[in-house]
Amino acid sequence: MRDRRTLLRGLALAMLVAVVAFRGAAAQRPDDPLPSWNEGPAKQQIVAFVQAVVDPASPAFVPVAERTATIDNDGTLWVEKPTYIQGFFVLERVRALAPQHPEWRTTQPFAAVLDGDLAQLEQLGESDLLELISATSAGMTQEQYDAELRQFFATWRHPRFHVGYAELYYQPMVELLEYLRQNGFKTYIVTGGGIDFVRQVAPTVYGIPPEQVVGTTLEYQCQVVDACTALVRQPRISLVDDKVGKPVGIQVHIGRRPVFAAGNSDGDIQMLQYTKGRAGASFQLLVHHDDAEREYAYDQGTEQALDYARQDGWLVVSMARDWRQIFPFERK
Amino acid sequence: MRDRRTLLRGLALAMLVAVVAFRGAAAQRPDDPLPSWNEGPAKQQIVAFVQAVVDPASPAFVPVAERTATIDNDGTLWVEKPTYIQGFFVLERVRALAPQHPEWRTTQPFAAVLDGDLAQLEQLGESDLLELISATSAGMTQEQYDAELRQFFATWRHPRFHVGYAELYYQPMVELLEYLRQNGFKTYIVTGGGIDFVRQVAPTVYGIPPEQVVGTTLEYQCQVVDACTALVRQPRISLVDDKVGKPVGIQVHIGRRPVFAAGNSDGDIQMLQYTKGRAGASFQLLVHHDDAEREYAYDQGTEQALDYARQDGWLVVSMARDWRQIFPFERK
Repeated sequence: MRDRRTLLRGLALAMLVAVVAFRGAAAQRPDDPLPSWNEGPAKQQIVAFVQAVVDPASPAFVPVAERTATIDNDGTLWVEKPTYIQGFFVLERVRALAPQHPEWRTTQPFAAVLDGDLAQLEQLGESDLLELISATSAGMTQEQYDAELRQFFATWRHPRFHVGYAELYYQPMVELLEYLRQNGFKTYIVTGGGIDFVRQVAPTVYGIPPEQVVGTTLEYQCQVVDACTALVRQPRISLVDDKVGKPVGIQVHIGRRPVFAAGNSDGDIQMLQYTKGRAGASFQLLVHHDDAEREYAYDQGTEQALDYARQDGWLVVSMARDWRQIFPFERK
Repeated sequence: MRDRRTLLRGLALAMLVAVVAFRGAAAQRPDDPLPSWNEGPAKQQIVAFVQAVVDPASPAFVPVAERTATIDNDGTLWVEKPTYIQGFFVLERVRALAPQHPEWRTTQPFAAVLDGDLAQLEQLGESDLLELISATSAGMTQEQYDAELRQFFATWRHPRFHVGYAELYYQPMVELLEYLRQNGFKTYIVTGGGIDFVRQVAPTVYGIPPEQVVGTTLEYQCQVVDACTALVRQPRISLVDDKVGKPVGIQVHIGRRPVFAAGNSDGDIQMLQYTKGRAGASFQLLVHHDDAEREYAYDQGTEQALDYARQDGWLVVSMARDWRQIFPFERK
């Protein structure tokens, strides 16, 4: 009897342990790869697509070697208001170099930057930014430029959120990157911003190595042709990785069409179209900035993309409706 | 007694199995990562370098994320005589398109190709090849061009060795690629040849995915700007990935200096210098074609590289002396 009672007690304990373990697991929802996404059609569409892509029995199946995801950076992975984070870097550089360039006081876009406050920085177009980047970094070796970038990232804070670059990413999008990688996707950033700028932080912020960043690129020259021990940045651009330049950057760097692409602005239209033109399954995602309270609300520069999304069946993700949490620093 | 005898018999059998298994393993030399390399200083230098790079206690240690190897293709990974394999592709294309271009009969370099035999193909310089590639593929979508490449690779045979592209690689170099990868290196091809040409075959021949091929690149345009569902090849070159272009291609595609680089000609000098300029450990290897019997013997186009090798301490690999086997199809 004693043995039997002991056995029963043991069995009961084992069952209790099993039940507790099971409930604990359920509470943590280890089956939810996208915990910062609200339940709803957006999240469902993404998960259904990824499940189909990895299912050999599905007509949407894609072999691992072809599972490529290309994701825009500014406004898609991290905040781009009140202006691009790279805009703040350029502002710092222009101010630092201004004493050596008295002519900048009366030349645009330099004068605007030197006189500028945030309102004026917001007005800077992409070509202005490119001119500023080129003017403030040409003649430097790549190693010198990378050192300037590291210094900027170490100290800069966002004017509204008062945190550094490492906390300005969108939590739901970083979960999406990780979810795609867990399902065999190779994840790339395809940014209109400077390729070197984003490469500095992509490994730590996004888990993406430098060679998987495609972006706007300057020309380079060997410092000494017959002893090429360093590359010097030139005041010319070899690729504007925006709009029609994004499919070009993808072809040059990756050499095949993406299966999954995400963006947030008119600069991403061609990348999303190019992805949709793939023979076989593909997915297009457009992040819509409609949450002024937690982030920003704006359609400027996104109007055409929203039209194409309706017309071509891209998924429009509402930050207000679809994201439970936006930034990692929000109280959960 | 019976039990004891059975036990002893069992033990003896087990020991015999263990001894046979151990000797079998030794016969296969599973500890030799480079079986097609002859024992000697070249092989020793390579192995010693890799062992130091992966040893956290060594001053030459390199973290995994930085272990990058960039290897030239023509003449370093596969045969480049009597002319580049891509030269044969261009020859086929020029012949196929000649009826639509009567002017080619009297224009160089087309006339030379159309009249040509192998002797004339050998004389084609790189700029001629680039002009031919551009002229024979501009206006095609990338998908159309890739289809032409697949057709060429499916049928072409080498005029001397009578085998296709898939058997023209150097067995010792493919072992070296695999050895580097086993030690945490990310292996890249950095070729003066067309990036698309090499991407077609790099996965099957070298185990290198398309995105890890850097090469000479044409310009692209969206076929339709507002509906960019295809890219069209332009008759202009955006990167000549040779000589001073190789460090540029490496910076643009990879974004950090290689730790290990290998080449075979003057076109590789700057890549090897750039690798040597890395802060920290690095290795430079130059393949020397000195085996007319098994492959080819030539110094033309390699004279300067051999000088730099002596001056800067690059490892010069003699195909005749250092490679036990060159091609996979040789009798072993």
